[in-house]
Amino acid sequence: MSLEVIILGSAGSIPTKTRSLPAIMVRRKGELILFDCGEGVQRQMMRTAIGFDKRMKVLITHMHGDHVLGLPGILQTMSLLGRKKTLEIYGPEGLGDFVEAIDKTVQFALSFPLEVSEIKNEGVVCEEREYKICCAEASHSTIAFAYSLEEKPRPGKFHPERAKSLGIPKGELWSKLQNGSAITLGDNQLIRPDQVMDHPRAGRKIVYTGDSISSQPLIELARYADLLIHDCTFDDKLTERALEDGHSTPSQAARTAMEAKAKRLILTHISARYKTPSLLLKQATKLFPNTIVAKDLTKINLPLPK
Amino acid sequence: MSLEVIILGSAGSIPTKTRSLPAIMVRRKGELILFDCGEGVQRQMMRTAIGFDKRMKVLITHMHGDHVLGLPGILQTMSLLGRKKTLEIYGPEGLGDFVEAIDKTVQFALSFPLEVSEIKNEGVVCEEREYKICCAEASHSTIAFAYSLEEKPRPGKFHPERAKSLGIPKGELWSKLQNGSAITLGDNQLIRPDQVMDHPRAGRKIVYTGDSISSQPLIELARYADLLIHDCTFDDKLTERALEDGHSTPSQAARTAMEAKAKRLILTHISARYKTPSLLLKQATKLFPNTIVAKDLTKINLPLPK
Repeated sequence: MSLEVIILGSAGSIPTKTRSLPAIMVRRKGELILFDCGEGVQRQMMRTAIGFDKRMKVLITHMHGDHVLGLPGILQTMSLLGRKKTLEIYGPEGLGDFVEAIDKTVQFALSFPLEVSEIKNEGVVCEEREYKICCAEASHSTIAFAYSLEEKPRPGKFHPERAKSLGIPKGELWSKLQNGSAITLGDNQLIRPDQVMDHPRAGRKIVYTGDSISSQPLIELARYADLLIHDCTFDDKLTERALEDGHSTPSQAARTAMEAKAKRLILTHISARYKTPSLLLKQATKLFPNTIVAKDLTKINLPLPK
Repeated sequence: MSLEVIILGSAGSIPTKTRSLPAIMVRRKGELILFDCGEGVQRQMMRTAIGFDKRMKVLITHMHGDHVLGLPGILQTMSLLGRKKTLEIYGPEGLGDFVEAIDKTVQFALSFPLEVSEIKNEGVVCEEREYKICCAEASHSTIAFAYSLEEKPRPGKFHPERAKSLGIPKGELWSKLQNGSAITLGDNQLIRPDQVMDHPRAGRKIVYTGDSISSQPLIELARYADLLIHDCTFDDKLTERALEDGHSTPSQAARTAMEAKAKRLILTHISARYKTPSLLLKQATKLFPNTIVAKDLTKINLPLPK
C-alpha cells in the first residue's frame, strides 16, 4: 500500500524560478492530503498528474498568504472541471472568513460541497478508519499548527496453516479473526486473533511543521516519525533572524529530528537567498545524516514498515 | 524607445503545464503596465526578470478568479521585498472589495501605497504625459472591460540646420520649440515649431480584449492598433459554445482585427483542450494573416512607427 509524499512547493515566503510556494502533497490509497496551499499549487498538481477529482483534504498551517493563496485557484479549477466530491479544508481561525471572502468577491460557483473546519485545539484534527491527522501548536509570528499524519497499526500477518490446524473453516470466521475479533468454535471454544496472527504492524507517520521555530511540542509531534518535513528558512548563521521571524535553521531542524528519533528529514520553506542546497544540507547532516533539502516535484515513497 | 509586450499567461480559465493564467505585461520606458493578473503571475515575472520595484499599473478586465487571483501574491511579494512606490490598480466594481477582503483575511502588511480605482464608464481610465489607457465594455458573462494603451503623438523630427539658418541660438529656445512651443526671437519675430520640425509622429497602440465576444465596441477600441490581443478560447467549430460562455473564436478575433485595421493579432486565453496552436492559427490566418497564438514568456517588441 503506497504512501507517497510529493513536494509541490518548497519556497519560503517568496517563490523563485525553481521553487513554488509551500505545498506538500501526500497520496495514500487514491486519496490526496495536501498540507498548505501556496499560490501556484494547481499547476504543480498538473505537472505531477495528480488530478482534481480525488478524495481530498487540505490542511493549512497558518493564514499567511504564501501558505494559502493557492486555495481559491484549486476551488475554481475543481469547479470548472465539475468536481462533485466533498473537499475538506482544515486550518486555524480565519480560514473560514478567507474562503467566504473569496467566494463573495471572485465569482466562481462551487460545483461541490466544501467543508471548512477551523481548528481550536491541539490534538486530533480528523480521524479515518486507517489513519488520523493530529496537530500541535507551532511557534510562528501568527497562530500556526504543525500536523502529523499517522496510520493506525495494521493487523499482523494471518497464518492460514494455524487456522486450519485449529479446525477453523475458511470463510467468514477467518475474516472475523483477520479483522481483530475473537470467534467461538464448536462448543464454546474461544479462539483469539493472536492464535492465528502475528502482532499488529505499525503504520507510517509523516510530520510537517509548517513555519515554526523548533520547539518541544514539535519534537513530541514528530516522535518516531518516518518522515519529518521541517521549516528551514535560514541557515545557521542567521539563527537570530530565524528566531525573530519565527523560522528554523538546519541545525535546529536536525536536532528536532534527532530528539524525536525521526527516520528521515526534509528541509523545506527555503529562502530565495539559497541558490543551491549545499550549505543547508551541510549544516543539517552534521547532526542528522538522513536529510535532504526539498526540491519541487520530488516524490518520496514511504515503504510499509516490516 | 522600446515598447515590449510579454505574454505572462495565455491560458483560458484553467492553466496547463505550459500556459499560466491570463496576464499580459507591457514594458515601456522602465514602467510596467500589467493587464490581468491570473494566479502564478509573480513567478512568470521572475522568469522574465521583470522585477518588482518598477513604476507599475495593473488593469483588471473582470473579476473572474482566473484573471485576478495572482494579485494578492504580487502585493505580498512586493511588500516582502520592501517596495515603496505606489501601485495603481484599475478594474471593474468589486475590485476594491476583493483587495480589502484579502488584506483583512490574509495577513500581509503592505509596504507601499496601493491605489485601487474602480472603473464606472467607458473612456479614459488614466492619462500620463506620453500615453493614455482607455477602456470599452466587453461582452462577457460578467461586467468586463477591454483596454487600449495608446501613446500620444511624439513631436516631429527637429532639424538643427533650419534652426541655425533662422538664427536661433542653441539651448533653451531649441528645447522650447522641440517641446511644441512657439518662441519669439529679437524684435517680435515669432517662430513656430513647424518651421524647424517635421509633423508629429504617431505613437503605438496596443489593445487587449480580456474575455469577450467580438463586438462593435471592441472594433472601435482596436481601430488602427499596432497590436490586438484578442480572446480566442474556442475554435470555430465551437462558435455556439463561445457565444454562450462570452468568448471568441479565431475567425471572430481575425474579423475584429481586420475590421479595426489592426496591424498584428495575438490570440490568447486558449482553452486547455488545444494541445497545439495549429488549428486556431489556421482558422484565424485565413482572414488575418499577421496572427500568432500567444505562448507564455514570448516577448514582442513594437518598433516606433517611422
